[in-house]
Amino acid sequence: MTLAALSMQPAHASLMPQPARLSPGEGKLAINQSFRVALSGYQEPRIHAATQRLLDRLARQTGMPLVTELERDPGRATLVLHCDRAGEPVQSPAEDESYRLKVTATGARLDAPTPVGLLRGIETFLQLVEVDRDGFTASAVEIQDQPRFPWRGLLLDVARHWMPLPVLKRNLDAMAAVKLNVLHLHLSDDQGFRIESVKFPKLHQRGSDGSYFTQQQIRELIAYARDRGIRVVPEFDMPGHATSWLVGYPELASLPGPYQIERAWGIFDACLDPTREEVFEFLDVFIGEMAALFPDGYFHTGGDEVSGKWWETDTRIEVFRRERTLGGHQDLQAYFTRRVQAIVSKHGKTMVGWDEVLRPDLPKDIVVQSWRGQKSLVEAVRQGYPSILSHGYYLDHIRPAAFHYRVDPLENEAAALTAGQKSRILGAEACMWAEYVTAENVDSRIWPRAAAIAERLWSPQEVRDVGSMYRRLAAVSRRLEWLGLTHRSSYSLLLQRLAGDSPVGPLQVLADILEPLNLGGRAKARHYTSETPLNRLVDAVRPESDTAREFAESVDRLLAAPAESNARDRIRPRLELWRDNHLRLSPTLRRSFLLQEVTPLSEDLSAISAAGLEALNHLASGQRLSPAWLEGRKDLLKRAAQPRAELQIQVVAPIRKLIEAATRKF
Amino acid sequence: MTLAALSMQPAHASLMPQPARLSPGEGKLAINQSFRVALSGYQEPRIHAATQRLLDRLARQTGMPLVTELERDPGRATLVLHCDRAGEPVQSPAEDESYRLKVTATGARLDAPTPVGLLRGIETFLQLVEVDRDGFTASAVEIQDQPRFPWRGLLLDVARHWMPLPVLKRNLDAMAAVKLNVLHLHLSDDQGFRIESVKFPKLHQRGSDGSYFTQQQIRELIAYARDRGIRVVPEFDMPGHATSWLVGYPELASLPGPYQIERAWGIFDACLDPTREEVFEFLDVFIGEMAALFPDGYFHTGGDEVSGKWWETDTRIEVFRRERTLGGHQDLQAYFTRRVQAIVSKHGKTMVGWDEVLRPDLPKDIVVQSWRGQKSLVEAVRQGYPSILSHGYYLDHIRPAAFHYRVDPLENEAAALTAGQKSRILGAEACMWAEYVTAENVDSRIWPRAAAIAERLWSPQEVRDVGSMYRRLAAVSRRLEWLGLTHRSSYSLLLQRLAGDSPVGPLQVLADILEPLNLGGRAKARHYTSETPLNRLVDAVRPESDTAREFAESVDRLLAAPAESNARDRIRPRLELWRDNHLRLSPTLRRSFLLQEVTPLSEDLSAISAAGLEALNHLASGQRLSPAWLEGRKDLLKRAAQPRAELQIQVVAPIRKLIEAATRKF
Repeated sequence: MTLAALSMQPAHASLMPQPARLSPGEGKLAINQSFRVALSGYQEPRIHAATQRLLDRLARQTGMPLVTELERDPGRATLVLHCDRAGEPVQSPAEDESYRLKVTATGARLDAPTPVGLLRGIETFLQLVEVDRDGFTASAVEIQDQPRFPWRGLLLDVARHWMPLPVLKRNLDAMAAVKLNVLHLHLSDDQGFRIESVKFPKLHQRGSDGSYFTQQQIRELIAYARDRGIRVVPEFDMPGHATSWLVGYPELASLPGPYQIERAWGIFDACLDPTREEVFEFLDVFIGEMAALFPDGYFHTGGDEVSGKWWETDTRIEVFRRERTLGGHQDLQAYFTRRVQAIVSKHGKTMVGWDEVLRPDLPKDIVVQSWRGQKSLVEAVRQGYPSILSHGYYLDHIRPAAFHYRVDPLENEAAALTAGQKSRILGAEACMWAEYVTAENVDSRIWPRAAAIAERLWSPQEVRDVGSMYRRLAAVSRRLEWLGLTHRSSYSLLLQRLAGDSPVGPLQVLADILEPLNLGGRAKARHYTSETPLNRLVDAVRPESDTAREFAESVDRLLAAPAESNARDRIRPRLELWRDNHLRLSPTLRRSFLLQEVTPLSEDLSAISAAGLEALNHLASGQRLSPAWLEGRKDLLKRAAQPRAELQIQVVAPIRKLIEAATRKF
Repeated sequence: MTLAALSMQPAHASLMPQPARLSPGEGKLAINQSFRVALSGYQEPRIHAATQRLLDRLARQTGMPLVTELERDPGRATLVLHCDRAGEPVQSPAEDESYRLKVTATGARLDAPTPVGLLRGIETFLQLVEVDRDGFTASAVEIQDQPRFPWRGLLLDVARHWMPLPVLKRNLDAMAAVKLNVLHLHLSDDQGFRIESVKFPKLHQRGSDGSYFTQQQIRELIAYARDRGIRVVPEFDMPGHATSWLVGYPELASLPGPYQIERAWGIFDACLDPTREEVFEFLDVFIGEMAALFPDGYFHTGGDEVSGKWWETDTRIEVFRRERTLGGHQDLQAYFTRRVQAIVSKHGKTMVGWDEVLRPDLPKDIVVQSWRGQKSLVEAVRQGYPSILSHGYYLDHIRPAAFHYRVDPLENEAAALTAGQKSRILGAEACMWAEYVTAENVDSRIWPRAAAIAERLWSPQEVRDVGSMYRRLAAVSRRLEWLGLTHRSSYSLLLQRLAGDSPVGPLQVLADILEPLNLGGRAKARHYTSETPLNRLVDAVRPESDTAREFAESVDRLLAAPAESNARDRIRPRLELWRDNHLRLSPTLRRSFLLQEVTPLSEDLSAISAAGLEALNHLASGQRLSPAWLEGRKDLLKRAAQPRAELQIQVVAPIRKLIEAATRKF
């Protein structure tokens, strides 16, 4: 998109997620210091708090002091917020989140049946505000909006690396900004038990290294989330992924222990013992405590990746299995699941489990979370289970936003489902597993990519233009900074740490075209534990290189229409910058022990860019590059495409395209 | 300084403020994940908290998880912190802040007589840690350090624009990092009364627009400051600058009112009435309340800029004056000062006042704060008053760090003082008046420049190399980011707000060589009030352009040694970038109403850079520029040197130098 074309975009073209229905109006509403809000209809503290946040954020977005008192006369207000009635006492997937927003040149009105709908509409209104030649304005528009799926979540793993409360709060703000409505907190795993238990205090005392949420903090978090129309669903992973429970309570295991908090990543054998009634008595008390703390109607008990080894090799457990005619350890897990489901149900909650829990003869009020493939999602709803999709939405897989954007819960295997079956697909959750992120870079791993998933789950199915998505994603990303997200600001800070007292510019030129390996690649590259510092370049670079994507687009445009100079004018300075960068960067690389591993990447970027420039010159002159020339660069291109230092150069493929084009006949 | 030379600098060369005595040692101490701290000698909660902050900050600075438990065996610790004894129950200027720090290749030991000395030494230790080719290290060194002046302050005006608690806390962190030890809170002025009074609640209720510190917040702030070895001195400005008092309590004035919170800037006539006993009764109760809240031994009652108009024109006051044979309004102010001093003293505090309070026959235990010139500082100490200097340290005057750095409390008029007189100069305070700053840009107006002042006040008088100061200032500035200061991160955020959805790069190229006018220039440019948005480019640009300073240095080097190519290689790309920038920036300027005023500056930067390039070419070729050529650019150069949009292009002078050199004979 050229700058001129960009300037023609009306403001509503940067909305994300796109609303269900939108009709552009005439003119623009001026947003100036006479901006006033009036409330009408049903009122409650949540609406008042949301209105104050709206005013605060508008003041930040514009840099204008605004009057924060409400206008009593709706006729004199710039924006009227009207709510019909109270929402659900505890928000559920059935909550009405719809709203109608009408902006004209003289005023704006937001109507919603519930406070949550009002919250959604306020985010839309704030996205409409932009700076133009006349002032801050909101384009006239009429919007009728509601979500496509009622369950739009983000899983945050606070067990593998600890994420303190401020991290969660700012991510709740970001979630609300893109209309996500479920924070799934993965609160326990082999590496940590992250919540205070009054009933069993050794869980957090012995299982957390001192990093856990107090119950008071959890209440604060839930209130903060509810204020933003977001549910908080706790997950306590069992019977596997449970080492941290056993540090304080080894009697929950079938082996005597003692146990230590697990420091490595992976699947471990440690399991709760499904054969002893004391274990279920413990779980009854514990789940009762947590069910009272978390008001949400859903309660996640994990159930993934049970190694089964302990259960297969323990004579006592074998006897137990045989007595009950249970087959392998999966049958035993199904037995465990049934028992736990009964406890969860007794405490008034609906159980949620990872797709491994899907076994015959389970009660149907279990929500299945599909992570191993869309197939399990389809199987679950066919068997009558409500379900949510996470396969395809794993943020730690370091896929581009476009990849996640193209995953649709109702497509692929799900396309053939009946309407009734489809209605059991409640939605989806993006997953941020925390083996390779810490509080200082987690924002950059979630945002802005999660906003693309948020749009997939909120907007109509036919909203799928990837170019439009990326353009709007950039706008969302910039605006999230005003909410305190650190996904952009942490980048220069982390690069500066690597560069020490050297100027950070050349390092950023390199970092801008690198992407980290995903968790599989990293696990293969070295032995990581929870104590391994995540302070290398791989931890600083962004999961998706905008620079590389835009460069690849320019190359494609050039090769599609070699006569047009526009794309060439974008390609050449980039290649020159990269070609010359190693010379500028190498003193910095030499001075920092953390950067020495990056030297081959920097060298190769310069070398392939030099080759790319030669190709570009040949393309311009119409002279073919010789086969011998190409042969001489084969090793370089091959090497440059290989990951080193757990990093991947993202511009190898487009440069290779340039070279291949210049070696073909024209 | 070239990069190669920079890499040769030992880590202690980036210390700021420089210590009183430093001897480099052999080798380096490795800072890795086995880093442990042990405490020895006297212990108290403040030391434990400081140790945890040290570990947290080291973990952030290095990105390494560190063990936060203390090491019990000093022999096994990497760093031993030893404190001799408790410090003062309420920190005073007499507190011992000295410390000794010895770092060897095998360990480090910090010795201090008091916890405050330990705090100072911890900051030095953290500054020693750097990344190098072997890892994170601290250079071996032996340091014996203590401050030159006991009073090293920062005044923060929270009255003109409100600064909420998080702004103050992060600035306290920054102050501690550069060893400043007094936060002077300017809590009341015509535009706002910023603290809760239980005795006279209409002060904050009617005088603050709802923006004030509760007493609980003040206690929290004081504890936070004490934890960092910083005193908090409150200022209640009287009898002038007091409009906000009168909104709730018009009876304190000699005119009946009613009064409104003042929105404009300047000196106003509103004054407390010095002739009525009720006013002193009010002040007695009020000062008693505040003296109990603020533990510090000093209590600032302002006294500056009393208009006197009311006192000169009121018959009743005239009678009062005549009865007491008081001359003009200044004598009346002296009478008021004496009465207030007695109240302050009764409540156990030493009064501090602006230099206008300096009148004959005052008790000598008043500290005089000199702001109108160094002369009043000298006069005050000659008359026997302890005093502190602020003239020359006004951050809102938008002077370069080098300017403030060259101001020394004991030089100029003070050089001729006797040793005894000099000893009454307690130190100085940097002043951040808040007419033209808000919470979102105040950090960038204070930091890093205040660190240069901090060095002037801590380090030996002979530490005065400006080049070294700027190099170390850059390091301090980067490190302050880890403490959460926003002086750097706010820049791109504010520029992005101005640019809207346009790319921010070209705007930053321009902004990087602009500086804002100071408060005098701004007041002349337009009528400002507290409600005027501070959201223009003048509010986003930094108070001192590093780019312009470095460019000017390159030009000076080139002209001093035209044969050396190094400086030319730095000058040419800059000039080319600036010459081409207007073309890239103009679409952005056109699209944002906030940027249209900047167009002439952008045009002129491109034009003078083109002229500068011509001059550079002629200098290289040895061919003189013709007088006609020069004549044709006279208007341009004159215009480019003029402020527009309250902004000043900072590279006009060096470009003019290039041009003048190219028009002279060689």
